[in-house]
Amino acid sequence: MNLYKDLKERALKCNLEIPKHGLAIYTFGNVSAFDPHRAVFAIKPSGVPYENLKADDMIIVDLDYRVVEGKLRPSSDTKTHAVLYRHFQGVGGIAHTHSTYAVAWAQANKAIPIFGTTHADHLQYDIPCTGQMNDEMIRGDYEEETGKQIIKTFEHLSYKEIEMVLVASHGPFTWGATAEKAVYNSAVLEEIAKMAYLTLQINSDAPLLKSTLIEKHYQRKHGSDAYYGQIEGE
Amino acid sequence: MNLYKDLKERALKCNLEIPKHGLAIYTFGNVSAFDPHRAVFAIKPSGVPYENLKADDMIIVDLDYRVVEGKLRPSSDTKTHAVLYRHFQGVGGIAHTHSTYAVAWAQANKAIPIFGTTHADHLQYDIPCTGQMNDEMIRGDYEEETGKQIIKTFEHLSYKEIEMVLVASHGPFTWGATAEKAVYNSAVLEEIAKMAYLTLQINSDAPLLKSTLIEKHYQRKHGSDAYYGQIEGE
Amino acid sequence: MNLYKDLKERALKCNLEIPKHGLAIYTFGNVSAFDPHRAVFAIKPSGVPYENLKADDMIIVDLDYRVVEGKLRPSSDTKTHAVLYRHFQGVGGIAHTHSTYAVAWAQANKAIPIFGTTHADHLQYDIPCTGQMNDEMIRGDYEEETGKQIIKTFEHLSYKEIEMVLVASHGPFTWGATAEKAVYNSAVLEEIAKMAYLTLQINSDAPLLKSTLIEKHYQRKHGSDAYYGQIEGE
Amino acid sequence: MNLYKDLKERALKCNLEIPKHGLAIYTFGNVSAFDPHRAVFAIKPSGVPYENLKADDMIIVDLDYRVVEGKLRPSSDTKTHAVLYRHFQGVGGIAHTHSTYAVAWAQANKAIPIFGTTHADHLQYDIPCTGQMNDEMIRGDYEEETGKQIIKTFEHLSYKEIEMVLVASHGPFTWGATAEKAVYNSAVLEEIAKMAYLTLQINSDAPLLKSTLIEKHYQRKHGSDAYYGQIEGE
Repeated sequence: MNLYKDLKERALKCNLEIPKHGLAIYTFGNVSAFDPHRAVFAIKPSGVPYENLKADDMIIVDLDYRVVEGKLRPSSDTKTHAVLYRHFQGVGGIAHTHSTYAVAWAQANKAIPIFGTTHADHLQYDIPCTGQMNDEMIRGDYEEETGKQIIKTFEHLSYKEIEMVLVASHGPFTWGATAEKAVYNSAVLEEIAKMAYLTLQINSDAPLLKSTLIEKHYQRKHGSDAYYGQIEGE
Repeated sequence: MNLYKDLKERALKCNLEIPKHGLAIYTFGNVSAFDPHRAVFAIKPSGVPYENLKADDMIIVDLDYRVVEGKLRPSSDTKTHAVLYRHFQGVGGIAHTHSTYAVAWAQANKAIPIFGTTHADHLQYDIPCTGQMNDEMIRGDYEEETGKQIIKTFEHLSYKEIEMVLVASHGPFTWGATAEKAVYNSAVLEEIAKMAYLTLQINSDAPLLKSTLIEKHYQRKHGSDAYYGQIEGE
Repeated sequence: MNLYKDLKERALKCNLEIPKHGLAIYTFGNVSAFDPHRAVFAIKPSGVPYENLKADDMIIVDLDYRVVEGKLRPSSDTKTHAVLYRHFQGVGGIAHTHSTYAVAWAQANKAIPIFGTTHADHLQYDIPCTGQMNDEMIRGDYEEETGKQIIKTFEHLSYKEIEMVLVASHGPFTWGATAEKAVYNSAVLEEIAKMAYLTLQINSDAPLLKSTLIEKHYQRKHGSDAYYGQIEGE
Repeated sequence: MNLYKDLKERALKCNLEIPKHGLAIYTFGNVSAFDPHRAVFAIKPSGVPYENLKADDMIIVDLDYRVVEGKLRPSSDTKTHAVLYRHFQGVGGIAHTHSTYAVAWAQANKAIPIFGTTHADHLQYDIPCTGQMNDEMIRGDYEEETGKQIIKTFEHLSYKEIEMVLVASHGPFTWGATAEKAVYNSAVLEEIAKMAYLTLQINSDAPLLKSTLIEKHYQRKHGSDAYYGQIEGE
């Protein structure tokens, strides 16, 4: 019995959510699932179309970027995932997509303003956009540096409260306690990105969501007295 | 035999119209079906994905917000539905979605202007957007207050002639004589919202529909001499 | 054997192209198929959802608006179809949809400029938008007047070369030698309407297609020396 | 056994990618597959709907525009394909679509600026738009001249590094080492075209991608030390 069978199946299932939700075409994008006990993650192989993916194609990689198991090359973004797992304690999954509206905001080099309750149901802040990486970072260990650029963006932000970021001129990375949550966040981000785009087209002076509404919507779903969703374990 | 079997099945069927028409992703949105004789309504449980919903998951709630039957927690928007049923006599169903274009107008804090006959086929007025709720309302019994904010918006408007509203910075609520009509109105609202958005992008001075056309289109479908559709009962 | 069996089946098939190509939701829109020998046309019944339509539901109507056969009420737009059949010799089918981008141009009260060869492959002119109907026309025999307004718009235009029109603040009507061609024109119009919309968003000074290109593309498909498509009868 | 069986089947398969990826409606667009040994290509017949296409419908044409085999008329764009095969050594497939966003940029007569890494993953330059063809070219051997206009556009550009072009006021042509790659490029171009459109709507001053990022993303996928994708032959 393969040690990583469950982890690979989970990673496969979550990678397949990307084409299912229209978050990328062809081979674009990737999801990884982390096993905190073994300190390894399963990630999509590089450049393989989603329709051909099998659980056994997933690559097991440790936090020092070493392939632990797998016949194929891991995603070219593997080091970015590893850096985030090293720094973001408690994160169990990471997703990277090229979803159209989120990429457009990233290419516009703009954070996504918090305009409504759909946004506040998931996070209380604008969705941050990193600064541009400098040439040294880009010419150096690029994917590692991409991870570090994200970490730097969260210096004064909480990665537990904001489970998503736009890498400037590139596209979105999202994460969560599980790989399922990470890819869910990618789909939610794309929807929020589209809504915010349309909002500004309709009203370029659209008001930001007022702080009481932000707090209310976030707390009713995520606070200690949350009443959205079902009580787990019941 | 369960007393509420029919009501639950109807609520289930109408909730499933939401993903079918692309009006929300994941667990967003909810529809309820009202039984005026028992003064209860069946509503979607909170935070349960549409693909997993069964009729028996629907929650039966009375107009004082009490759960009459059901094992799961009802939608977090349940009180808003109850307030509307209490005040809008004759309404048999309510739908709340996060459909993209309707939400964009709500986030823009703008009523949707009546630009064409697709709009006038359904209502003779701009689709209203509520004012912002004040902090006291938001910090108080929020979902009840959301219902009251809608009622206030209809102080000088007819909820029978305008079966839809945008809650500012939040999204659309729609209703109708039946739950089927309520969710139909959600899909129609989304289409009208998209058409109005595009109209203004093409011509920022687009004229409002002239009053004779508004009246003609509305009356041929809803007036005493309506000739749109089939004669019921025949 | 029903005299109108073939005509009804053809009308049904063409009506079903409307939801298949996403040209209208629910019951919106209608297609008719004309039989020039009997001077009658088969048209969709009013307000019946596409998913429930059967060939036998189609209504046979003559050019004086009389129902010749059929148990249901014909489309509320029936008189508009009849007026067009009376005036547009050789037209064998008419389609009316509420397709999103075409409606947006109609609501913007703007003709669709000829920006590219996709447009010129089908017609050599801007797609006209009628003027506003006056109040007398609207309060009078509205659907008949709608047909007359279209006729008036074509006073100095050729309905054989321009098989489509936007009725101001309403939406598109298209026609052709057959019902199949009429509904094909509706789908093509929607695509052209979307392309023209995007073109102006990208470049508000986008140039109209030059006349040599207009002529070339139209003639290679429709001229006496056309070489697009297969030679019929071979 | 037919000499061209494989080539025709490949051309069919790649033509069917056009409707699958939503790159054209009805009969619009065409893909050809080139056999360098026999110096012929298989191309879609003119004006035949995709849903009816069979491998045997593909036409075999040589580089002097002569039909070598096939009962139907080849695509009206056949000469454009032939010109490109004659001048672009090593190209094994060509695709022409009417995809909505790429056509909109072509109609806007604008090159698509390189705004992000999705673009740089595929090419290091703006996607060029040809100049307008003059009247002599249009009235002359139009499709041949269209090919020549593309060749002229690449006078100082590399067709191996830029496998796509917008023909002004018309639409996109793409190519590649294989027909599969050519049609892949059509889908990628459409996605890049949409992202660039949205980017400018969000931020009309969006910065072009910096040169280090362009080089990094292109080289990691296409350079001698590329590490994107799997090593072929392994």
